Amino acid sequence: MNRHELISTIKKKRSFLCIGLDTDLSKIPQHLLTEEDPAFAFNKEIIDATIDLAVAYKPNFAFYECYGINGWTSLTKTIRYINETYPGQVFTIADAKRGDIGNTSQQYAKAMFDPCSSGMNFDAVTVAPYMGEDSVKPFLSFSGKWIVVLALTSNKGAEDFQFFRSNEHRLFEQVLLKSQNWGSSENMMYVVGATKAEMLTDIRKIVPDHFLLVPGIGAQGGSLQEVAKFGLTKECGLIVNSSRNIIYASNGKDFAVKAQEEAMKIQFEMESLLAGLPEF
Amino acid sequence: MNRHELISTIKKKRSFLCIGLDTDLSKIPQHLLTEEDPAFAFNKEIIDATIDLAVAYKPNFAFYECYGINGWTSLTKTIRYINETYPGQVFTIADAKRGDIGNTSQQYAKAMFDPCSSGMNFDAVTVAPYMGEDSVKPFLSFSGKWIVVLALTSNKGAEDFQFFRSNEHRLFEQVLLKSQNWGSSENMMYVVGATKAEMLTDIRKIVPDHFLLVPGIGAQGGSLQEVAKFGLTKECGLIVNSSRNIIYASNGKDFAVKAQEEAMKIQFEMESLLAGLPEF
Repeated sequence: MNRHELISTIKKKRSFLCIGLDTDLSKIPQHLLTEEDPAFAFNKEIIDATIDLAVAYKPNFAFYECYGINGWTSLTKTIRYINETYPGQVFTIADAKRGDIGNTSQQYAKAMFDPCSSGMNFDAVTVAPYMGEDSVKPFLSFSGKWIVVLALTSNKGAEDFQFFRSNEHRLFEQVLLKSQNWGSSENMMYVVGATKAEMLTDIRKIVPDHFLLVPGIGAQGGSLQEVAKFGLTKECGLIVNSSRNIIYASNGKDFAVKAQEEAMKIQFEMESLLAGLPEF
Repeated sequence: MNRHELISTIKKKRSFLCIGLDTDLSKIPQHLLTEEDPAFAFNKEIIDATIDLAVAYKPNFAFYECYGINGWTSLTKTIRYINETYPGQVFTIADAKRGDIGNTSQQYAKAMFDPCSSGMNFDAVTVAPYMGEDSVKPFLSFSGKWIVVLALTSNKGAEDFQFFRSNEHRLFEQVLLKSQNWGSSENMMYVVGATKAEMLTDIRKIVPDHFLLVPGIGAQGGSLQEVAKFGLTKECGLIVNSSRNIIYASNGKDFAVKAQEEAMKIQFEMESLLAGLPEF
């Protein structure tokens, strides 16, 4: 999905919601545990219930890798299900936070973007910037695919290094500045945590047009209103993620309906925020 | 494997060689491609041929993930094979460069360290420091396990951010300094690229006792002699990785014998370097 299609999807669904498929078998409804593939069964119902409300889905790989081969199977089935059942209807983000030396990142890129090799075909992957340009560029060699570079994350540990400062600026600003040379706003986004919404003003000075993927509303305490106030651009420019608040809204048999209700609340709030933009 | 056992293994094998199992199906001998699981068949022969020469094995996850479920299966079989066939005889490093917010890193830790959950049981995992303390600490909650924190990597992109400097020091030094509070030399190591061997003098001032995992000799151009000159401690303190030079020494039916010969050359050089240490 390219930038134009992403913006069209946002306009059509009147939403910039991303649902984080952080599927934890200890938190999903008990009745699903008898299914052959409980994580996939859970994801499928969540996706079916929210496809009109979400512009993106973002499975975090950790929640699948912890179950080894079975988890990797659930993950593969999930992305295939989205691509086959709802082609072109939703943006998909592999939240894997990968990054390694060039020839190795090339293999990670195949894992995320080349279905003939790995069976998986995401639109985007989150990448860690610590190893620099050659660790990130192989992902951009896949036409039509995106990277989402960690800039300023939503967790407490963000303060340990991301605010490390030279005379001119802080590390997360250096990441935003340097990475401008690696790609464009057509194939790069940045992770900026909702818990740091006030920082978005400074960030928008460096990346006025790039989409930002914003985790941290809901369970982590960030505010959608604050994020929108400081982060929205004339083309939206935001994808805001919510995971636990939506997918674990209920752990009964009504979990998908309750997830839909929670997603609808957020979509409703987003619709009114988008209505304030001239082009929407 | 704890620090004492690791040092004993180094003494016994007169080696501080780590073999990188970066198994690429386009590079392994053709005759293995008819095996049911070519990557595992390759790894098994490499391991059997080098177990007396290597103190560690380090599969890089990218080379498995690019083959999706099949790759993850080969990886799982490889670590199981090492643990079952050579228990306590070799240190195992999951070269996965993971790191995420706390509750997510906890899931990654289960993937690497909890065989009841994931089927895998490595001694150590490489972690990316960008997201700070809470992204790394969950790995240390597993007793007897290690993290290997990226400090100064061997690739060109290392210069993009790792040398970003405040008034006092550079980012990679900040990583070494800050992370001292997260664990000890009993459960933390650092990645320092062999291509930056001269930097080891500065690094040893900050982490005089920690083990360093040093990639980059061989194909990437680093020198073992240089690394040893600046990095060895009285307890060795180094694990030096070689991947391509060893595992792809031949792509014929003699690949395991040739890999053994290459590993033996490095082990021989290491033996003479260790002989210069009073306690070895």
